[in-house]
Amino acid sequence: MDLPSLAATPRQQVLPYGRVVNFSAGPACMPIEVLLEAQQEFVNWRGCGMSIMEMSHRGRYYLKMMEETKGRLASLLHLPQSHHLLFMQGGATLQFAAQPLNMLRGLGDSADYVVTGTWSQYALKEASKFGKMRVAAENTANGFVDLPPVKEWTLNPNAAYVHYCDNETVHGLEFPRTPDLSKARATRIRLTSDMSSNFCSRPIDIDAHALIYAGAQKNMGPAGVTVVIARDDVLGKELATCPAMCSYGLCCKADSALNTPPVFAVYMVGLMSKYIQERGGLETWSRVCEAKAQRLYEVIDASENFYVCPVKKDARSRMNVRFLVAGASAERAEDGADAQGCSAVKENEALKKKFLREAEERGLYHLAGHRALGGCRASLYTGMPNEGVEALAAFMKEFAEENSEA
Amino acid sequence: MDLPSLAATPRQQVLPYGRVVNFSAGPACMPIEVLLEAQQEFVNWRGCGMSIMEMSHRGRYYLKMMEETKGRLASLLHLPQSHHLLFMQGGATLQFAAQPLNMLRGLGDSADYVVTGTWSQYALKEASKFGKMRVAAENTANGFVDLPPVKEWTLNPNAAYVHYCDNETVHGLEFPRTPDLSKARATRIRLTSDMSSNFCSRPIDIDAHALIYAGAQKNMGPAGVTVVIARDDVLGKELATCPAMCSYGLCCKADSALNTPPVFAVYMVGLMSKYIQERGGLETWSRVCEAKAQRLYEVIDASENFYVCPVKKDARSRMNVRFLVAGASAERAEDGADAQGCSAVKENEALKKKFLREAEERGLYHLAGHRALGGCRASLYTGMPNEGVEALAAFMKEFAEENSEA
Repeated sequence: MDLPSLAATPRQQVLPYGRVVNFSAGPACMPIEVLLEAQQEFVNWRGCGMSIMEMSHRGRYYLKMMEETKGRLASLLHLPQSHHLLFMQGGATLQFAAQPLNMLRGLGDSADYVVTGTWSQYALKEASKFGKMRVAAENTANGFVDLPPVKEWTLNPNAAYVHYCDNETVHGLEFPRTPDLSKARATRIRLTSDMSSNFCSRPIDIDAHALIYAGAQKNMGPAGVTVVIARDDVLGKELATCPAMCSYGLCCKADSALNTPPVFAVYMVGLMSKYIQERGGLETWSRVCEAKAQRLYEVIDASENFYVCPVKKDARSRMNVRFLVAGASAERAEDGADAQGCSAVKENEALKKKFLREAEERGLYHLAGHRALGGCRASLYTGMPNEGVEALAAFMKEFAEENSEA
Repeated sequence: MDLPSLAATPRQQVLPYGRVVNFSAGPACMPIEVLLEAQQEFVNWRGCGMSIMEMSHRGRYYLKMMEETKGRLASLLHLPQSHHLLFMQGGATLQFAAQPLNMLRGLGDSADYVVTGTWSQYALKEASKFGKMRVAAENTANGFVDLPPVKEWTLNPNAAYVHYCDNETVHGLEFPRTPDLSKARATRIRLTSDMSSNFCSRPIDIDAHALIYAGAQKNMGPAGVTVVIARDDVLGKELATCPAMCSYGLCCKADSALNTPPVFAVYMVGLMSKYIQERGGLETWSRVCEAKAQRLYEVIDASENFYVCPVKKDARSRMNVRFLVAGASAERAEDGADAQGCSAVKENEALKKKFLREAEERGLYHLAGHRALGGCRASLYTGMPNEGVEALAAFMKEFAEENSEA
C-alpha cells in the first residue's frame, strides 16, 4: 500500500533511534527507556516463555504483573486506604456515563458540573442522559481562556456530586490546585474529576475526591486503559441499568478482571509508574513538568506577540501549551501589552502553516492545534524529553526572528 | 519483587525463542511471526519516528494503519456492503449491554436468547437490565454438553433480535454452522452472535446476521479491542440512555475513533489479519483449525476413557477442547461404550494434577479447565502452532500409557 513515508522526508535528528519529537496530545510519546524495556521482553516476558499479551488473566504471571503495577501506581499516588485503584476500558468518555450510573441516587437525580472546555462539556452532555445535570460554573462567555473561581461556583447542596476537568486538553487550561469546596461553602458535596491529561504529572489530593478517572494514553501509557480511583462510598451503588463494565463495585470486587482486562496497556502503565518512581516520584516529577511548560510559555511571552497564548496566565496548562502564530499581524501594535498573555491578536494562517512545515523539517511533530480550535499546541507529557522541549524553544525563537516584520 | 520464575523450571523446548506451548483460553498465544514483526517496529513504526502506540489517532500514520487494518479484515471476512466494521472497547461483556441498548425498540422491549453455556447466560443476564428477555432454547438440563436443535427453538416473532453464542469458551461447545432460522419458522427475526472465541477461524455468514461481535484476545490479537460487525439497520437506533461508547451509530460515524481508540490492539488485529490472509484466507484457515482440534479429539476418543470429552460429538468446539483426566476410574468399565463421547466417567483429581504438572515439564502450559468447571481445556486459537498440538497429543498418549491400570 501507498504509505506516506516520514522516513523519506529529510529531517533533523534530535533524538536517538531515528525518533522524532512528538508533541501529540494523545496518544502521546512515551519515554524511550520504557519502550525499549517493553520491546526487549515483548516475545518472552521475564523468561516465562510467553509475551505479556498472551497470558491468561487468571494465571500467576498476569497476577504478579498486576500486583506490581498496582503497587507501583498506589505508591506513586500515596493512595489512601479509603480509595481503590481500578483499571477499566472505554477512556474518559465511558467514565462520563459510568460516573452518573454509579453515583446518582436514582435515574433523574441531579449532579453539578463545572464547564471549562471541550471535555467537561462532553462529560455534562453524556451525564445528562441519566439525570438532571446543572452547570455550577462555566467560562464559556469569555471563550474558555480562564477558570471560574471556586468561590463563585453556585453549587446545589443536594447534588449527587460536583464534577470538574482538572486539565482541559483541547483548550489548554489546568486547575492550578484542587478546588477547595469550602470556598464555595459546599464541603459535603462529593468532588469528582477527570484527570485524563494531567494524571501523575503532580501529587494528587486524593482524599479531597470521591472519584478520579484518567485515560492512560497521555501521561501513563498507551490508549486502551482508564485508571479509576474510587472511594469506598462510590462502590456498589450503581443504578439497575448500569452495564456491568461500568460498575465500580463489580470492577473492584473482581480486582479489575471482571472480564479480560487490556493486559498489555495495564502492563505499560506499570512500566510508566516505575519510570516516574525512579525519577523521584510525583513531588520531584511535578517540577520537571512545570519546568518544561515554563520553557515554552517564556518563549511565547517574550515573543512580543509573534506567538500568543490565548489562555490567561493562572489557568495555563503545564501539559498542553496552546499558542497562535500571529506574526506581525495588524492588531499587533495595539494589543501587545496585555499582561495576562491573553490577547485579541489573530492567527496568521499562512504563517502557521509555514511554522508547522518547518517544524517537521526539524523533526518536531504534531504541533497543530485541535481541529475544532486551530492554532498550535505542544503537549508535554511524561514521555517528552527535555531535548524535545529545548529543540522546540530554539526553533520557535529562530522562526520568530526570521519571520518578524522588520 | 519475588517473581515466580518459569525460566528456573527445567522444561523441554518445543518452540523457538524459549517460548512454551500456551493453551490459554484467552488472552492467548499469538503467532511468533506476528510478535516478531510488532517487536521489530515497536519503537519506530515504518521509519516514521514514533511507536504505533504514540501516534495521534487523528494523524496520517494512524489513519493509514487503520485503513490497512480495516481493509485486511474486511477482505478476510468478505464483508458485505450492508455491514460495518467497528472497533470498540470493553470486550464482549460491554457488548452484552450495548446490543440491547442499540437494538431494543424501547426500554422494556423483548429479545430472545439461546442459552448454551456461561457466556450466553451472562449475555442474557446483562441484557435483562434493559428489557424483558426470553430464553428461546437452552441446554442447561443436560449440563451444557450439546446444542438445542434450531427447529426446537421457540422464538417470539416480535423479538427485537435473537442472540446466540457461536462458541462457548468455558463449556467447549461450538455451533457447527450458522443457525438456520427458517427451521424455527422465524426468518424475520434479527440474528445476533457473540463470536469472541471462534472469530476468524472459519468463513462467517455475515449476511445472516444483524450483529456480530468478538473480543480480539482469542484468535485475532491482544485483549483490549472488540470487533463489531453491525448491519445498517442496527445503526443510529440506540436508546436515549445508551452511553456514547456503546452506540454503534456514533462509533460508525466516527470511524471507530469517537474517542481515543486502543491503537496498539487495533494494529495487532491488522497484523493477525495479514497473517491469516497470507495463509490462504478463512476457507483454507478453517481446515487448519479443524485439523488441530481433530488431532486432540482423536487422542481423547482413542484413549478408552482415560481421557473423556464431556461434550457430544456434533457440538464439540474446534477452539476449546475440553477433557477430563479420568484414568482408570471405578466407573470406567460400565461406561466405556458411549458412542457420543459423552460419559458419566468422573475426573481423577490426583491424576489430573499429575497430568498438569508433567505437561508443564514438557513446556505445555495453561491446560487447566475453567475454574468453574474443573477438568482440562486446550485452546487452539490462531497462534497455536501445529508443533504445539503434536507435542500435546504425544504427551497425552504417553501419559495415558504410563498411568493406565494394567
